[in-house]
Amino acid sequence: MRIFIVGAGSLGMMYGLRLARGGARITFVTRSVEQASLIAGKGGKLVEDGEEFVVVAKAVSMSDGMALAEDELPGAGDWIWITVKQAHLTDELLASVSSLSARGAAVLCLQNGIGHLPRIAAALPAGTLIVPAISTEGALRESPDIVRYTGRGTLMFGPLRPGKTNAEEEEITQKMLVSVLEEAGITAELSNQMENRIYEKLLINAVINPLTAIFGVKNGELPLHPSRLRLMSALFMESRAILARSGLNEEYGSWEKVLAVCEATAANESSMLRDVQSGRATEIDWINGGIAGLAREAGIPSPLNDAVAAMVRALH
Amino acid sequence: MRIFIVGAGSLGMMYGLRLARGGARITFVTRSVEQASLIAGKGGKLVEDGEEFVVVAKAVSMSDGMALAEDELPGAGDWIWITVKQAHLTDELLASVSSLSARGAAVLCLQNGIGHLPRIAAALPAGTLIVPAISTEGALRESPDIVRYTGRGTLMFGPLRPGKTNAEEEEITQKMLVSVLEEAGITAELSNQMENRIYEKLLINAVINPLTAIFGVKNGELPLHPSRLRLMSALFMESRAILARSGLNEEYGSWEKVLAVCEATAANESSMLRDVQSGRATEIDWINGGIAGLAREAGIPSPLNDAVAAMVRALH
Repeated sequence: MRIFIVGAGSLGMMYGLRLARGGARITFVTRSVEQASLIAGKGGKLVEDGEEFVVVAKAVSMSDGMALAEDELPGAGDWIWITVKQAHLTDELLASVSSLSARGAAVLCLQNGIGHLPRIAAALPAGTLIVPAISTEGALRESPDIVRYTGRGTLMFGPLRPGKTNAEEEEITQKMLVSVLEEAGITAELSNQMENRIYEKLLINAVINPLTAIFGVKNGELPLHPSRLRLMSALFMESRAILARSGLNEEYGSWEKVLAVCEATAANESSMLRDVQSGRATEIDWINGGIAGLAREAGIPSPLNDAVAAMVRALH
Repeated sequence: MRIFIVGAGSLGMMYGLRLARGGARITFVTRSVEQASLIAGKGGKLVEDGEEFVVVAKAVSMSDGMALAEDELPGAGDWIWITVKQAHLTDELLASVSSLSARGAAVLCLQNGIGHLPRIAAALPAGTLIVPAISTEGALRESPDIVRYTGRGTLMFGPLRPGKTNAEEEEITQKMLVSVLEEAGITAELSNQMENRIYEKLLINAVINPLTAIFGVKNGELPLHPSRLRLMSALFMESRAILARSGLNEEYGSWEKVLAVCEATAANESSMLRDVQSGRATEIDWINGGIAGLAREAGIPSPLNDAVAAMVRALH
């Protein structure tokens, strides 16, 4: 099994280097030519618990990806991981992934928010196995060839709609990936509840991310002020109701869990707050914008998701 | 000239008692029977610069208003001041004001925000002189019969659309009111730019009020944090553009003025913050909601006004 990591950002680098260190056959497919030549030249550096590991792996840039020899290209049984942010999931990138997956490789999608899976499915060859994934691990890319592994967690993936895939063969492909991950010391879980897990993560992000960005506070500070807590609660209730209409099971996504995440990540700045502070585009369109989209499909209003989305866009 | 003050809240009480102390013929028309009997019984108390003045004035409750003797009712040359908040401007209240104004009294409207003038005009007898007013004075009602005069300012009023009134007689009625006000030591200004002034006040309120309520800060603290300042600026620009489309003259409503008001009232909590903290309904529907309404009429979007309105409503 070969694994092609498309987009060597923080998560892609962290998983790719940990897998390569564990003996897996990794090819990074980077967006820039510079990053590919850096990693291909002297390896990527993984910083973990204060230790540094230089890991050698293949790397090509997206524009050079098609220049790989026939036998270096992914085929049946191989995996392509799309680890770029939704904002970088352009038609051009999807066209490259489509070419890469033409010989039957499966595709794992590690985006935050929602909205990407239908787009990816529409762009890839019919019959491609596409599985959504959620990571609770932490990573911070310090430079194009250095990534810091900042928080242990789990990589979960599985079919989006269990029972609708063509079954046994696809299940084996996914179980093989779990065993390759575990060999590399990565905790992985094959889930048949991915929609619930995606919605639950979306719900937590939809409350914490925009409000920490608007109020300019760390996750732990968010619930400490009465009007912030009231807005969290109102945004949670609106979002929970919309996600429930769209299929979120009632055992997922509790208010207590949102507060527990604020507490567990108290000293962290949310990615949205960091993006706003750095003047980068945020993921708002796929988080609260994604929930607003589900609301529109269901014909129900989403005033608070619209509100925080408008305010975060104004902060860019 | 007799002046009937409908709604003895902070502004109504402050003006009514100052006018009565100055010799004007005042009748309070209160919403509650209790307040009317308190004021009619032992007078209202005006607290000004540490001094207390007990002022005797007529007072009837709205439900008893029609029980006034024929010669106690307002007629041509008299004024009815509507000083209730927009939330209290019910159909029932407008019906009472309509009866009171049936004999030709003029009507002065002291509401914040916009949206009330067409409603009032539709409810009152055709041909009634209706003038909008803006006060920059401060008042705090401490109990149903005690009001504190907290900040000196000006009462401005005038025809909403100059030239569209039936001219001379109405101008005399308004000038008479100015002289009665000045006799009582109240600084008054007859303006033929009321629409601009209303829009300018609306613009300032639309930026400061919802954001101080959302962030839970005093006026002076609002611009001190980068994301708050960015949201102020974005909300100002959106609102300014909508008001300009609706007729705001470009010499009114500058960004510097918004910042100057924050500074001049640095230690104050905005009325919207106080309302939110006390669990009272806010004036959001007539401030940012009013601007959103103008945007809809003009067929342009108002995402940030919609956003802060949704968030303030969630804080109630």
